[in-house]
Amino acid sequence: MTKEIRLCAFDMNSVGHQSSGLWRHPRDQSDRYNTMAYWTDLARTLERGLFDAIFLADVTGIYDVYAGTPDTALKSAMQVPTNDPFTLVPLMASVTEHLCFGVTGAIPYEAPYSFARKISSLDHLTDGRLGWNIVTGYLDSAARGTGQAKQTAHDTRYDIAAEYMEVVYKLWEGSWEDDAVKRDRVSGIFTDPTKVHTVSHAGQYFNLEAVHLCEPSPQRTPILFQAGASPKGQAFAAAHAECVFIAAGNKESQGELVRGLRQQAAEIGRNPNDLKVFALVCAILGETDDEAERSLQEYSQYADLEGALALVSGWTGIDLSQYALDETVTATKTEAIQSSLKGFGNHPVGDIARNLAVGGGCPKIVGSPQTIADELQDWADQTGIDGFNLSYTVMPESIERIVDLLVPELQKRGAYKTSYQPGTFREKLNGHGPRLSAPHPATSFRQLA
Amino acid sequence: MTKEIRLCAFDMNSVGHQSSGLWRHPRDQSDRYNTMAYWTDLARTLERGLFDAIFLADVTGIYDVYAGTPDTALKSAMQVPTNDPFTLVPLMASVTEHLCFGVTGAIPYEAPYSFARKISSLDHLTDGRLGWNIVTGYLDSAARGTGQAKQTAHDTRYDIAAEYMEVVYKLWEGSWEDDAVKRDRVSGIFTDPTKVHTVSHAGQYFNLEAVHLCEPSPQRTPILFQAGASPKGQAFAAAHAECVFIAAGNKESQGELVRGLRQQAAEIGRNPNDLKVFALVCAILGETDDEAERSLQEYSQYADLEGALALVSGWTGIDLSQYALDETVTATKTEAIQSSLKGFGNHPVGDIARNLAVGGGCPKIVGSPQTIADELQDWADQTGIDGFNLSYTVMPESIERIVDLLVPELQKRGAYKTSYQPGTFREKLNGHGPRLSAPHPATSFRQLA
Repeated sequence: MTKEIRLCAFDMNSVGHQSSGLWRHPRDQSDRYNTMAYWTDLARTLERGLFDAIFLADVTGIYDVYAGTPDTALKSAMQVPTNDPFTLVPLMASVTEHLCFGVTGAIPYEAPYSFARKISSLDHLTDGRLGWNIVTGYLDSAARGTGQAKQTAHDTRYDIAAEYMEVVYKLWEGSWEDDAVKRDRVSGIFTDPTKVHTVSHAGQYFNLEAVHLCEPSPQRTPILFQAGASPKGQAFAAAHAECVFIAAGNKESQGELVRGLRQQAAEIGRNPNDLKVFALVCAILGETDDEAERSLQEYSQYADLEGALALVSGWTGIDLSQYALDETVTATKTEAIQSSLKGFGNHPVGDIARNLAVGGGCPKIVGSPQTIADELQDWADQTGIDGFNLSYTVMPESIERIVDLLVPELQKRGAYKTSYQPGTFREKLNGHGPRLSAPHPATSFRQLA
Repeated sequence: MTKEIRLCAFDMNSVGHQSSGLWRHPRDQSDRYNTMAYWTDLARTLERGLFDAIFLADVTGIYDVYAGTPDTALKSAMQVPTNDPFTLVPLMASVTEHLCFGVTGAIPYEAPYSFARKISSLDHLTDGRLGWNIVTGYLDSAARGTGQAKQTAHDTRYDIAAEYMEVVYKLWEGSWEDDAVKRDRVSGIFTDPTKVHTVSHAGQYFNLEAVHLCEPSPQRTPILFQAGASPKGQAFAAAHAECVFIAAGNKESQGELVRGLRQQAAEIGRNPNDLKVFALVCAILGETDDEAERSLQEYSQYADLEGALALVSGWTGIDLSQYALDETVTATKTEAIQSSLKGFGNHPVGDIARNLAVGGGCPKIVGSPQTIADELQDWADQTGIDGFNLSYTVMPESIERIVDLLVPELQKRGAYKTSYQPGTFREKLNGHGPRLSAPHPATSFRQLA
């Protein structure tokens, strides 16, 4: 049976996202990121292409490791300026019916009580089309924005995240029983107070004694996304995530990672198929392979290598301004780059930058719809992933070519849906109901009464 | 010359707002507060009526002073459930061109770094139609939601607020110079880094060392709303606010308050006319006085007195469940109620509840468009206010009657605009440019370089 491939758009409320310098391309419109029309047009295009979701990355902080200043990031608009991704959800939801949203929210920067309310509010407004990408934060510059000197150590961040999840699960799943809200105009009872419970949490990092402010939203807990690749990150994903984004560079290592994640999920009793895995890829399309190759060459002319290196320097903590473009980073430092850009650790710095600047830190597939469909199908078959998270080069051209060229080709092969499933994000993803099922950890907080 | 009257809609992302029990009215639709269509329809109606803005109140916390439990508030849906007001802005902006937004954001519940970004992001998306209602929080239940035992003392809250304002002003006004962003596709310079500055703030309550994440938005600092009536609150409003909401009960005391506020603003060098004052009022309209009176009687049948008392108990900190409906609260406690519901302090508890439940804790004007226009014009002339903040009884009927009956009557008298001013909220309000002018305190943070 032909395996179904799912597509997400990988984006950010910023200019060019990871494609350093490509905002200078004459057809690129990503510098209109701060206008309504840019996002409503994009949302309509994605829905026309039956994309499952738009995934909105976010970085709270600025890339200032490169040469020890934010100057390069600013000059090349490398994820600065960057606006709040949550503000885009109601906007894009207002012009679509099925498109879902995976929005990045960093745990250190909002208290669980108000964050849980924001999420529930958006899940209501979108009729359950919301996903949350859980990140623990990684830039020291973001920590300084909240008055801390540095980021909390990596492993501690995951401990904080685990406790944060417990608090928001209690608020989303345990505070209001399913039938608490009556809306009974005759008896005058809007909510039955015996079915609403105060969340009490006295933990190591969070204290709370509160009723969740929102009535139950369609999904309660939104679809949970996670992207951590470290051992702690993988364990966290196996326990909590419903969608996992991976960016590894070859099919063999990706297949291994996917099997590992699903096995860990199974070991704690979850259905391994409830973990949907999306691989980050940049697909550069043309009507023919030649035309696609010419597009790649044309895009490459606009690459801003310094901006790309500012991004990698921020990801890895290594100041790459100290290397010549033909130099390869020392072996001990290669590991950090490997984990950020699988397969690119031992290339010269200039090659890393050239690769990143056109479509981001991920594999690139260049070709006709047939070539790309062949490759994506093979990829999905070999690795066991469920779909792809597509980064862009030039907007909206990248997405329009996917929708107009690739989607029909995949549909012709029976590898892509021809209409949306009804219902919430969760129903569209796995065909069960709108709520999480046991033994997902969220479900253990349903009986606070 | 006939004085122009401005109108705001007083609303909340919740059921019934202050009108306790009126969600049971057969024509009320406010229980659809959690759907997109409810808000986009309302936005279109408000823009059709040339409303300046929708003012979105917010309460982070739950009303649990009455009988020491949140049960009554829950039963009567008194501002619980309540969703995040900021999520409504992109939605309502997407179907309107001129309608502006005054959104309540409580200072204790979000760090200035991420709050400043959310505000700038919304000011971008709305093309400068954003206002922020600065509140310092007042419910202990909200404090417990963030792990504190009680609210910070009233005066300390204003000290914290003053420092918070300094931090967000620095981020909005001082971090990016006007011409920092070049968007220059030829030179490849998106932002000139020499014109972007790190905000350094080491204060008593906040520490920050960060570049603002957003490029300059149309207004930079959004229109600032404030509603505090205490001496500290008034001083804060005179220094910072551009719109002040007042809820006092008679023209004489309101006139005094307005003159006092403008005088305080003038004393610190501000143009007193840049302080726009809106009085909270509930206008119940019919084609004729009799028809309006019948509407009032009809609405009153749905009043839920206990819910109203739960609200007043929360506002005042006095548990009104201990009083019979025909009892008047003791003299020492009257003061707290006076300050919440001017003019209602020495009425029996039942009367307070009956008044509040139909249109909220404010004066009610009932009558034909002519009667109401007469009264509003007289009110504005006597007090020096600039307009009214209109609470509702039954939604969307209340607003539709204002738009269809009152607005044309005011226009006929030359007391109401016949089209919107172009530009941002600030330009629409006072006809100057989109930015704050000296000596508003925000302007002193423009030279961080």
